[in-house]
Amino acid sequence: MRGLGLLRAAGRRGRGVVLQLPQARPDRFGGVSVDLAQLRGLERPRAALLRAWLQDSIKQWKREGKIAVWLHIPVLQSSFIATAALQGFTFHHAEGDSSTLTLWLGDGNSRLPGYATHQLGVAGAVLDNSTGKVLVVQDKNKTKNAWKFPGGLSDPGEDIGDTAVREVFEETGIKSEFKSILSIRQQHRHPGAFGKSDMYIICRLEPSSFNISFCQQECLRCEWMDLDELAKTKDATPITSSIAKLLLYGYREGFDKIDITMKEFSAVYTGLVYKLYHRELPESYKDMGGL
Amino acid sequence: MRGLGLLRAAGRRGRGVVLQLPQARPDRFGGVSVDLAQLRGLERPRAALLRAWLQDSIKQWKREGKIAVWLHIPVLQSSFIATAALQGFTFHHAEGDSSTLTLWLGDGNSRLPGYATHQLGVAGAVLDNSTGKVLVVQDKNKTKNAWKFPGGLSDPGEDIGDTAVREVFEETGIKSEFKSILSIRQQHRHPGAFGKSDMYIICRLEPSSFNISFCQQECLRCEWMDLDELAKTKDATPITSSIAKLLLYGYREGFDKIDITMKEFSAVYTGLVYKLYHRELPESYKDMGGL
Repeated sequence: MRGLGLLRAAGRRGRGVVLQLPQARPDRFGGVSVDLAQLRGLERPRAALLRAWLQDSIKQWKREGKIAVWLHIPVLQSSFIATAALQGFTFHHAEGDSSTLTLWLGDGNSRLPGYATHQLGVAGAVLDNSTGKVLVVQDKNKTKNAWKFPGGLSDPGEDIGDTAVREVFEETGIKSEFKSILSIRQQHRHPGAFGKSDMYIICRLEPSSFNISFCQQECLRCEWMDLDELAKTKDATPITSSIAKLLLYGYREGFDKIDITMKEFSAVYTGLVYKLYHRELPESYKDMGGL
Repeated sequence: MRGLGLLRAAGRRGRGVVLQLPQARPDRFGGVSVDLAQLRGLERPRAALLRAWLQDSIKQWKREGKIAVWLHIPVLQSSFIATAALQGFTFHHAEGDSSTLTLWLGDGNSRLPGYATHQLGVAGAVLDNSTGKVLVVQDKNKTKNAWKFPGGLSDPGEDIGDTAVREVFEETGIKSEFKSILSIRQQHRHPGAFGKSDMYIICRLEPSSFNISFCQQECLRCEWMDLDELAKTKDATPITSSIAKLLLYGYREGFDKIDITMKEFSAVYTGLVYKLYHRELPESYKDMGGL
């Protein structure tokens, strides 16, 4: 609570402005957090008051040994961002109608956790086990018409398998079911990810419908292709080619050779559910105790 | 290029201010992009001019059939953010010293790509093959002292295996080498990820040093524990317990049963390098053609 600091800042301006200045909440990592949503409308005299308050507050937080300040700013109060930046704050992240800035007050380089670093793309390799054919598309907007598996970016909060099933349906009209993860690719400084990293996961799906009705906006072509042919063609991206071979290996010798399977857990304390993917464990190991 | 719009906006204010208004660059997705870094200092009369310019420009972009506007704003010009928000813009992302806002002008819901949705944590299961012991830690800041594998958040641009090796060294003083990925966990609305999703990957590592010197700030305990014991204990997180059993399975019956191995690729067009992880492919399949 910054009651004293507030009065001092207000008093020094000598304007008699009645203004509820923001309160700082300490966090359990030795920092403080201030939410400007506590304020209504930052008119100009108030902006000056806030500037003085921030300068005074930073001094006091340093004296108190705080190691960091988190500043949450509603978009309509963004005029305060430049003020904060002049005191050394930088953007931590922003989304929708608010931004968060941070100032490191501790020793050495900032040890504050960063924001999300990866976007997640998911593709589905839909294999019709009865025919050995796999569903492939060619992108409309690419110069080289290489065959690939349908897929796209995951929506916020969407599970990996759900993204694969949704994207396959949106692009091709084929309904399918998630079976396993087949591969993961990580790529940094991705142009399509605003310079962030890109994680790309290919899933094995089983089709429950077979009539293609592909999205004309996204796809140039879409067809059921012999898996064997896809594994051998030069007209495929390197990842598609690798995964086609892997899928062929599984199709011929058992999917247990290639599958990374999923198990769902409940997080005890938070009530959150999560999914864990790894190689299937023999029953004798599952039953050996532990959790 | 918005030359005409600029003149009209400037003329309407009738102040004779000589100001280079920002230029909009069209993108290949039918949108336009404006970078306010073109401007120097947004004084008050200029802010009014910019407001008028933005209002006029939005009307014109709509007439031209543009579907979206991207607005890049240096932190010191953030006073313009609220102006843009009043015209319907929202934050797309912000980092360091600039923010990006977007306005969807197309039909229906926005189809603009989102920003990074996942943070990535990586842990290392370091197994000493000569003794069957695995390196485990107990966190200092948790109430329940459950054994787990050392690990932490990946730095921007850092490869999965590098994060595992770095975090293991920082927490325990043990040097190690990346061998494979063992598991992936996805959890959404993660409290430690500012509400974003958390991807957590456990790698199999082989130690090249054995004397523990653990970080007193992060760890309460650190030891080499019999893998068998870790697989059976109740004092482990559910994920640690699952992966200990998996690792024991691999240790006894061959790591090829559990490993998700890595291959490095070069992206032809961008020159970027990426790493692809999947189950090891028999040589006969690797050589079958394709790419």
